[in-house]
Amino acid sequence: MARAGRRPGPSETREEIVAAARKLFAEQGYDGATIRGIAAEARVNAALLHHFFGTKQQLFVAAMNLPVNPLDELPRLLSGPPERTGERIVRMFLGLWAEPRSREPFLAIVRSVSGNEQAATMMRQFLTRVVLSRVAEARGVPPLRAAAVASQLIGLVMLRYVVRVPALADADDEELVALVAPVIQSYLTP
Amino acid sequence: MARAGRRPGPSETREEIVAAARKLFAEQGYDGATIRGIAAEARVNAALLHHFFGTKQQLFVAAMNLPVNPLDELPRLLSGPPERTGERIVRMFLGLWAEPRSREPFLAIVRSVSGNEQAATMMRQFLTRVVLSRVAEARGVPPLRAAAVASQLIGLVMLRYVVRVPALADADDEELVALVAPVIQSYLTP
Repeated sequence: MARAGRRPGPSETREEIVAAARKLFAEQGYDGATIRGIAAEARVNAALLHHFFGTKQQLFVAAMNLPVNPLDELPRLLSGPPERTGERIVRMFLGLWAEPRSREPFLAIVRSVSGNEQAATMMRQFLTRVVLSRVAEARGVPPLRAAAVASQLIGLVMLRYVVRVPALADADDEELVALVAPVIQSYLTP
Repeated sequence: MARAGRRPGPSETREEIVAAARKLFAEQGYDGATIRGIAAEARVNAALLHHFFGTKQQLFVAAMNLPVNPLDELPRLLSGPPERTGERIVRMFLGLWAEPRSREPFLAIVRSVSGNEQAATMMRQFLTRVVLSRVAEARGVPPLRAAAVASQLIGLVMLRYVVRVPALADADDEELVALVAPVIQSYLTP
């Protein structure tokens, strides 16, 4: 017997919007995809999409499926004593990777970025538009220096959690903070 | 009509040995795999294997299928003025990645390491046994510092060539040397 149809609840609608956004951002890029196009793909009203996500950038971050929202975390990292920005960044980043709950989705992202051109494009646009521009502006450094910070952090977790080189896999977070925070701080100092 | 059988030439034999080595190193790890076992897998005499490759470590490097042999390159990088070791390392590493002939096999390795546990194990043993131990010993630093060097270099090419963040993808090699060589030098200074 067929079940009676029912209207999708808010969390289903939200999921459908995120799925549509992921599809269009991957196919058309951050600039190419529009709120209107994503709303049409999800068969919802553009106003509803704004109600759930506010801005295109918020929707893009939701489509990245990250275990944390960098739009919430970055302001905290970039405020506070400037001479300890490197330390705050390394400590937060390692803390996220130490938690299996966030490490697993991060690892899935690393794998898909390495093997899949669309995932690499999403990550490129996410880093460039959402993360690096904010870091560069807050610290008054060129985007190249913000990108160097990201490169050191990504290389660190690649060798610690993907390749699992013993020297890095066995180090505790505080050892790594002591080693890497000065480097991050130097990149962020014009 | 069946072709007459012929004995495999030296380059075919060499390829068969490398294929057997790749299989056993991946299945049994660097310590578990033996010259005797690899010779048996390739159906050749262990003496012939020694004739082609010299040592188990040389054979392991051949099995990694790298576009350059680090056993040849490392001595040159680690000799010369010690205050410019960081610069020599960054310059050589970026030079290899700039060449499509070596970049393509490196990219293939990055992809397989990210997605495949056996490839990650091979890379872990290769870095630990062949590369990092030599760097740490030559510079008199703990393995953690040699691993930090590798992490910065790998993160750099991940963002420059895999994710292709514009700030890094568009930078020229000399800009990157100026930015990253001091960091590598600081990791290699006890």
